[in-house]
Amino acid sequence: MNDFIFHNPDKVYFGKHQLEHLPKELLKLGKRVLLVYGGGSIKKSGLYDTVMDLLQANNLTVFELGGVEPNPRHTTVNRGAEMCKKENINVVLAVGGGSTIDCAKGIAAAACSNSGDVWPLVADGVWVSEALPIAAILTNAATGSEMDAWAVISNMDTNEKIGLGGDALIPKVAFENPELSFSLPTYQTACGAFDIFNHVLDNYYLAGDATFDMILEFQEAVMRAVVKWAPIAMKEPDHYEARANLMWASSMALNGVLDAGTVHGCACHAMEHELSAYYDITHGHGLAIITPRWLSYILNETTAPAIYRLGIKVFGLPENLAAVDGAKETVEAVADFCFHTLGLTANLSDLGIDKKHFKAMAKHACLNGDITGPKTLTSADVEAIYEMCL
Amino acid sequence: MNDFIFHNPDKVYFGKHQLEHLPKELLKLGKRVLLVYGGGSIKKSGLYDTVMDLLQANNLTVFELGGVEPNPRHTTVNRGAEMCKKENINVVLAVGGGSTIDCAKGIAAAACSNSGDVWPLVADGVWVSEALPIAAILTNAATGSEMDAWAVISNMDTNEKIGLGGDALIPKVAFENPELSFSLPTYQTACGAFDIFNHVLDNYYLAGDATFDMILEFQEAVMRAVVKWAPIAMKEPDHYEARANLMWASSMALNGVLDAGTVHGCACHAMEHELSAYYDITHGHGLAIITPRWLSYILNETTAPAIYRLGIKVFGLPENLAAVDGAKETVEAVADFCFHTLGLTANLSDLGIDKKHFKAMAKHACLNGDITGPKTLTSADVEAIYEMCL
Repeated sequence: MNDFIFHNPDKVYFGKHQLEHLPKELLKLGKRVLLVYGGGSIKKSGLYDTVMDLLQANNLTVFELGGVEPNPRHTTVNRGAEMCKKENINVVLAVGGGSTIDCAKGIAAAACSNSGDVWPLVADGVWVSEALPIAAILTNAATGSEMDAWAVISNMDTNEKIGLGGDALIPKVAFENPELSFSLPTYQTACGAFDIFNHVLDNYYLAGDATFDMILEFQEAVMRAVVKWAPIAMKEPDHYEARANLMWASSMALNGVLDAGTVHGCACHAMEHELSAYYDITHGHGLAIITPRWLSYILNETTAPAIYRLGIKVFGLPENLAAVDGAKETVEAVADFCFHTLGLTANLSDLGIDKKHFKAMAKHACLNGDITGPKTLTSADVEAIYEMCL
Repeated sequence: MNDFIFHNPDKVYFGKHQLEHLPKELLKLGKRVLLVYGGGSIKKSGLYDTVMDLLQANNLTVFELGGVEPNPRHTTVNRGAEMCKKENINVVLAVGGGSTIDCAKGIAAAACSNSGDVWPLVADGVWVSEALPIAAILTNAATGSEMDAWAVISNMDTNEKIGLGGDALIPKVAFENPELSFSLPTYQTACGAFDIFNHVLDNYYLAGDATFDMILEFQEAVMRAVVKWAPIAMKEPDHYEARANLMWASSMALNGVLDAGTVHGCACHAMEHELSAYYDITHGHGLAIITPRWLSYILNETTAPAIYRLGIKVFGLPENLAAVDGAKETVEAVADFCFHTLGLTANLSDLGIDKKHFKAMAKHACLNGDITGPKTLTSADVEAIYEMCL
């Protein structure tokens, strides 16, 4: 078992009747707020007005940065950081899904750097220990950004999409009202659900040598929750329990609880970030395309028992198969979940993607060395997996 | 599903090689430290010297309060609070098990009250929002105090043992090295393990109406971990994985993760506190005596499915029994775990306890109203359960 540090000071208000606590929590952090949001769905839903009314009624001064992209750009982040510096912002409030929160995190970090430019922090892999305090109002169960130490920022000039991490990037406070995700389109619900699933799965296999069975079982419980509730949320978008389960699964997947004593893995995420960087596709969809192929690629006598365990514990496969056969059925169960239950198209070619950039993407995915995990992946392995996705 | 707030800012350093981080963490909180410890086992083990050397080498000024009792007394707490006021202490560092940490929490709270007396805070059920910062070095997996918002303080003058709670009582930092529990006697290991088990079980049944299956399954995973690893730790006291699983289970049981969306229950704990208050018995042993009788007492058509689920999920009972029959077998499995696996004596009479005070104890257990839970317990119910324990 590995030594570990667990530290997640995020204060999460979860449920229907929590937003009233927003002003007092913000006032602990300061009076000048940068409100960050995306494409305007929060204006349509009325959430924007609700938040603005609350802030203004409590004498908070609000500045705004709207129009954050689904894969947030470093240029947008830098505009926000400039506003923070110019307007002496005390706290960055994200209202939206993972992209919006990630953008807010980038802003919070860049605003405390001399240059005000987020990209050097991202490109150099700086661990962010100084940032403006971040608050989040979550509208989409997916990335876990509302409770984790990570942001993913895209640079479309260089076709790069890279994670930026740091203790200072964990939000100080987050509001999770499952009702705010009722209006999410089916496709986004599906993509978000698979993002959650894969956050756990990317870690799950590496835990094979840990003896915290309790943590392994937590991971399985979170994945089971996604498998159970995602199709219900897709069919009944305003099913509160389904939305609540997905939302808390999103936070649990990356808040550190499932990492205890294990090594944090990220094979599928590393491969998918290249796809989003080159083609700006929806992250969860890219993950769904990659994951079954990855599982199939790494399946061998050594990995089969762990893969089969996933099938038994999460997809209810029978326990009496030989390990390799069971593992193969598990891969099929994962593919079935992605491409039938969640209804996501199965092939990169369906998204208009061909093999043109695969070599460059694979090389970049392994820029910091081979991808560790249940089976170490070289850039040749990554390229082969991309080809399986065509 | 209920709305909830999750907030646990405790920074936990878990593992073998973490204590070196102690000075820098304490220096964030201040330079004047009150070191609180129990009966001297930390002197025998060398831990006292290690900690003192670390603190003094880093120019921290250390004051000491040793001799904390297994059920810490309010008088001891008050002595510590007096030292804090007199010596301008910045941080209270507990080195020991749950009792020592609870005592440190009482000290931290009383030191910030005008009177310096902890008992009015305890007796009035004050939610503590101001206290000196608390740090903990854990030597015993049991109470969860290293990561929770609670302390239990005893007043032997009035035969009262009552919980004191508050956000400010969550330690700022905790060090959990499973090796420090190697030297724990078998009996203490068993009592600690059952304390953990019951922290989860006291909550488990109330979760019956929640739809966070994920949380219910987390609860079962923690209880399974206790059932699996406690006998191993008892047989092989220096089995690292066993000690690590129990220690992290201790923290997970009460750090808030298992509470999400549920109602926090405490039926057995409420009944046991009276036993410890009157007879100063070991808390976990009292819980082990009460728990199977409580389960048996509340077993009916309504509660049977949830009780039987515990038997299936935690004790591996077959799934094909009628609910009431399965629930009865579950009660036997719990009793078997307490009285055979953990080797704890089964009856109060074996501990020299008779029914003399049962009526008064039952009345006091219900002082703030009937005990809520899967079945509401009046003082007459509590008295009946005590009699079953004779």
